[in-house]
Amino acid sequence: MRAQAAYDELIRRTREESLLASCAELLGWDELTYMPRGGVGHRAEQMALLAGMLHERGTDPRLGELLGVLEGSELVADPDSPAAVNVRELRRVYDRQTRLPRTLVEETARVTSVAQREWEAARADADFARLRPWLEKVFTLKRREAELLGRGAAPYDALLNDYEPGATSAELMRLFEALRAELVPLVHALTANPRRPNRDVLQRAFPLDRQRLLGAEVAAAVGFDFQRGRLDTAIHPFCSSIGPGDCRITTRFSLHNFRDAFFAVLHEVGHGLYEQGLDPVHYGTPAGEVSSLGLHESQSRLWENQVGRSRPFWDHFFPRTHQMFPEALADVEPDEFYFAVNRVEQSTNRVRADEVTYNLHILVRFELEQALVRGELPIAELPAAWNEAYRRYLGVTPADDAEGCLQDGHWASGQIGYFPTYTLGNLFAAQLFARAAADLGDLDVRLRRGDFTGLLGWLGEHVYRPGGLYPAARLIERATGSPPDHRPLVAALRKKYGELYEL
Amino acid sequence: MRAQAAYDELIRRTREESLLASCAELLGWDELTYMPRGGVGHRAEQMALLAGMLHERGTDPRLGELLGVLEGSELVADPDSPAAVNVRELRRVYDRQTRLPRTLVEETARVTSVAQREWEAARADADFARLRPWLEKVFTLKRREAELLGRGAAPYDALLNDYEPGATSAELMRLFEALRAELVPLVHALTANPRRPNRDVLQRAFPLDRQRLLGAEVAAAVGFDFQRGRLDTAIHPFCSSIGPGDCRITTRFSLHNFRDAFFAVLHEVGHGLYEQGLDPVHYGTPAGEVSSLGLHESQSRLWENQVGRSRPFWDHFFPRTHQMFPEALADVEPDEFYFAVNRVEQSTNRVRADEVTYNLHILVRFELEQALVRGELPIAELPAAWNEAYRRYLGVTPADDAEGCLQDGHWASGQIGYFPTYTLGNLFAAQLFARAAADLGDLDVRLRRGDFTGLLGWLGEHVYRPGGLYPAARLIERATGSPPDHRPLVAALRKKYGELYEL
Repeated sequence: MRAQAAYDELIRRTREESLLASCAELLGWDELTYMPRGGVGHRAEQMALLAGMLHERGTDPRLGELLGVLEGSELVADPDSPAAVNVRELRRVYDRQTRLPRTLVEETARVTSVAQREWEAARADADFARLRPWLEKVFTLKRREAELLGRGAAPYDALLNDYEPGATSAELMRLFEALRAELVPLVHALTANPRRPNRDVLQRAFPLDRQRLLGAEVAAAVGFDFQRGRLDTAIHPFCSSIGPGDCRITTRFSLHNFRDAFFAVLHEVGHGLYEQGLDPVHYGTPAGEVSSLGLHESQSRLWENQVGRSRPFWDHFFPRTHQMFPEALADVEPDEFYFAVNRVEQSTNRVRADEVTYNLHILVRFELEQALVRGELPIAELPAAWNEAYRRYLGVTPADDAEGCLQDGHWASGQIGYFPTYTLGNLFAAQLFARAAADLGDLDVRLRRGDFTGLLGWLGEHVYRPGGLYPAARLIERATGSPPDHRPLVAALRKKYGELYEL
Repeated sequence: MRAQAAYDELIRRTREESLLASCAELLGWDELTYMPRGGVGHRAEQMALLAGMLHERGTDPRLGELLGVLEGSELVADPDSPAAVNVRELRRVYDRQTRLPRTLVEETARVTSVAQREWEAARADADFARLRPWLEKVFTLKRREAELLGRGAAPYDALLNDYEPGATSAELMRLFEALRAELVPLVHALTANPRRPNRDVLQRAFPLDRQRLLGAEVAAAVGFDFQRGRLDTAIHPFCSSIGPGDCRITTRFSLHNFRDAFFAVLHEVGHGLYEQGLDPVHYGTPAGEVSSLGLHESQSRLWENQVGRSRPFWDHFFPRTHQMFPEALADVEPDEFYFAVNRVEQSTNRVRADEVTYNLHILVRFELEQALVRGELPIAELPAAWNEAYRRYLGVTPADDAEGCLQDGHWASGQIGYFPTYTLGNLFAAQLFARAAADLGDLDVRLRRGDFTGLLGWLGEHVYRPGGLYPAARLIERATGSPPDHRPLVAALRKKYGELYEL
C-alpha cells in the first residue's frame, strides 16, 4: 500500500471519529446545561453507545496497519509536518487504546464511577475512611494501567503522558521545586504584611442578571466570538468545543461573590479563544488540536490572571463595572477594587486560591500522587501527609479532611497526573505573556484602552494557529525563545504583589 | 435459528438504532434552539454522519434475515402482541429503506435541500416561477419513490403510508368530503353573521416574559412534567422527544400576538403529554412509539382546541391571565376574551386559521397534491388551481402566490402526503374528546376548576400507553367505539360556534 493512500484513509477515519466524538461532546454539554433531570438515565445510555462505537473505531486493527505503512515513510520524514505529527500522535493514542485490555478499562470505569459518588459522600461527612478502600482500588488499577502503558518508563510518567504528552515527572519536579523555593518565602512575606485588601467589597450584593451581562460584555470585548460560541450557566464552569465555529463556555453566578463568576468567565474565555483560534484546516486531526492540558490551561490562566487581574484591565473595566453595580460599589475606589481582586491568602482551598499561593496547592498534590503511585505512601496515611505538606508549604492546617485531602475529586475519578498541568499552565501563561508584552512593546497601554487585538493576534500566531504541531515544551520554546521556565512567573508575581503590598 | 433468539437480536438492534437516532434528535433540537450560527456547517456534517450510520444499520441484510425467521412464527401469532406489532412495523420500515436505491435517496435529499432554499426565496418575492422547476424535480422523484414503494398501490398512497401507515387516500377522501359538505355552509353562516368578536384585544402589548411565564404555568397545570421536559424558544414551535424522561417543546413569542405563543404552547404540550405518557417498557421499538402522524396531531389539537379554546378552560385561566396582563386586559371581560380566541374567518392562511376553517385549507392541499402526484395537474398550473380551490371552499382569493400556493414549505421539502394527517388529527381529537367527556361525565366541571387529571388519565389509558400497538384507525375505534368519523368534530363545532355566534 502506498503511503499517500494509507495517510488519506487514516485521516478520513480520524476525522470521522472526531466527528462522532463531537456528537458525544454536545450530549455532554447538554447534560450539564439544559437536560431535564428525567433525562439522566437515557443520556447515560446514549453516552455509553457512542463511547463503545468510538472505542471500536479507535482500536480497529486497520489503524495499526495504516500506521505501520506510514511510519518510516517519506511522508513523515519532516517531523514537524502535519502528516508526521498526526501519525506520531495517532500512534500514541492507538497504542494506549489497544494496550489496555477491555476488562481493565471497564473495571476502571466502574470503580471510578462508584469512587466519585463515595468521594462526594465522604467529603460531605469529612469521612476519609469511607473513601479509603475506593482510592486503594483506583490507585491499584492506575498502577496496572501505568505498567501496561509505560513499557519501562516510570509508572507515574505513563499516566502523566495522557494529559501532558512528552513531559516527565523529573523535569516537572525540577521546575516546580525551583518555583517552590521562590514562592514559599514570597507568600510568607506577603501574608505577614499588615497591609491587606478589603475583600468585603467583592462580597456585597451583585445582582445576577448584571453579573451575567457584564460577563458576556467582557467576553465579547476581549474577543470571544459569540457568532461561534455561547455562554451558559452550569454548576461547574467549563469550556466545550463542539466543532469549528461552535465553542461553548459556562459559568455560575452567586449573589455575594463577584469574583467567582467573573474570573470563571475569563478563565473559560481563555480556553474558548484558544479553541476558536485553532486552524480549521486541521480540524479533527491531532495537528489541529491543542496538544496538552498544560497548554490549554496556559490560555485560561493568561486571560484570567495576567490579563484579568491586571491593573490596566481594571483601569479599563472598573468604570463599567462600577456603573453596572452602583449600589455594591458606590463607595469603592479603583485602587481598593483592584487590590481586593488580588488578595493573597494562606488557605486550605485550591479552587479559591489566589495566583500566588495556587501553585503551592498543586505542589502538595503533585508530590503526594507520585508517592501514592510508587506505593511509598499508603492511602491510609494520605490525610496526615496532606496536612503536613500544607503546614510546610502554606503554613496552614485543614480543620478536617473535607477541607484537606477530600477537597478535590480528581483522584477518585482516576485522574492521576492531571494536577501538575495546572501549574504548567501558570508557568506557560507567564512566559507567553511576558514575551507578548516584549514583542508588542505597549501591551499595558493597549489593555488600558480595552484593545485586546494585539495580544490576541500574538497568541493566534504563536499559540492558537500552530495547534498541535509541536509538543507543549517545544511550542513554548518556539513562542518565547526559552524552554519552560519558572522565572517569568516569579518575576511577574514579585513585581505585581510587591507593588500592591508595598514590600 | 429459533424465533426467540431472532426476536431478541432484532429488538437489541432496533433499540440501539433508536438510541443512535435519539442522539441525532438532540443535535436537531440544539440546532433550532441554542446552537450558535457558526456551528451550522459542522452540525450538517454531524447529522450526515449519524444519518449514514442509521441508514447502514437500517438496511443491514441481517435485519431481513431476522424478519424472515420471525414472520409466520408462533411468536407473532397474536397480531396485537408487541412482538407481532414490532415485526410488522420493522418489516415496513426495512422494506421502505431497502427498496429505495441509495442514489434516489441522495438525489432526493439534495434536490429537496435546494428546493427548500428556493421556496424561501420564491415566497419572499411571491415568485412562483422560481420554485416551479424545483417542484417539478421533487414530484418526479417522489413519483419514482412511490413506484418503488407502492408495488401496485396508488402512488399517492405509497407516500401517504410513510406518515399514516395503513391509511388510503380513498378512505380519507370519503371522510374529508363528508366533512367539507358540512363545513363549507357552516363557515358561510358564521362569517356572514354581523356578530363578530373584537380580535384587537389579543393584539395589545403582552410583555414577553409574562407570556413565557404564563405558558410554562399552563403547561405544568395541564400536566406537562418539567422534570422530564423543557420549554424553550425557537423560530418555529416544535416538540422533540430525546428519550423517555426527556421531551422538549418550543414556542415563539411576539409582543402583539397573544394567541400565537399561547396556543403553540398548548399544541406542543399536547404532543409532549403523548410522548411523556408512552409506556417506557417498549421504548425504542415500534410498539412503544406513536404509530401515526394523525394520532400525534390528534393530541396536539385536542389540548390546543378542545381544551384550550373551550369556555371551561378560560373560566379557569382567564382570572390568572387577566392578573398577568393587567394593562392589556384591563377593560376586557371574560366573554369578550373567549370570543376573541375563537374568531372564525375566511382567510388565505393555513397556519393562522381558526379551528372551523382549518380543515378546508387542508382539503385544498390534499386534493391538489393527489392531482400533482397522479400527473393530472401540471406544476405550472398549480397557482391557478390553488386560487380556484380557495375561492370554492373558503370564498377568498390570495393576493399573490406568497399568500397562495407558496405559503407552505411541505412540498418543496418532499413531504407529499403529510397534509391530510393534520385533518385526521382534528377528527381524531374531536372523537376522543367526545368519548372522554361521555366516559368522565363531568369533564366541563373538572376543566372549569383546573383539574386536568381525569382527562389525562383517560388519554393515558386509551391513547398514550397503547403507544404503537394498534394502527391509528383501530386505536380510535378501540378508544371511542367508532371508526374514524367526521361527525363528532362537526357536532362540536356546530354547538360551540352556534352559541358564540348566536346562530
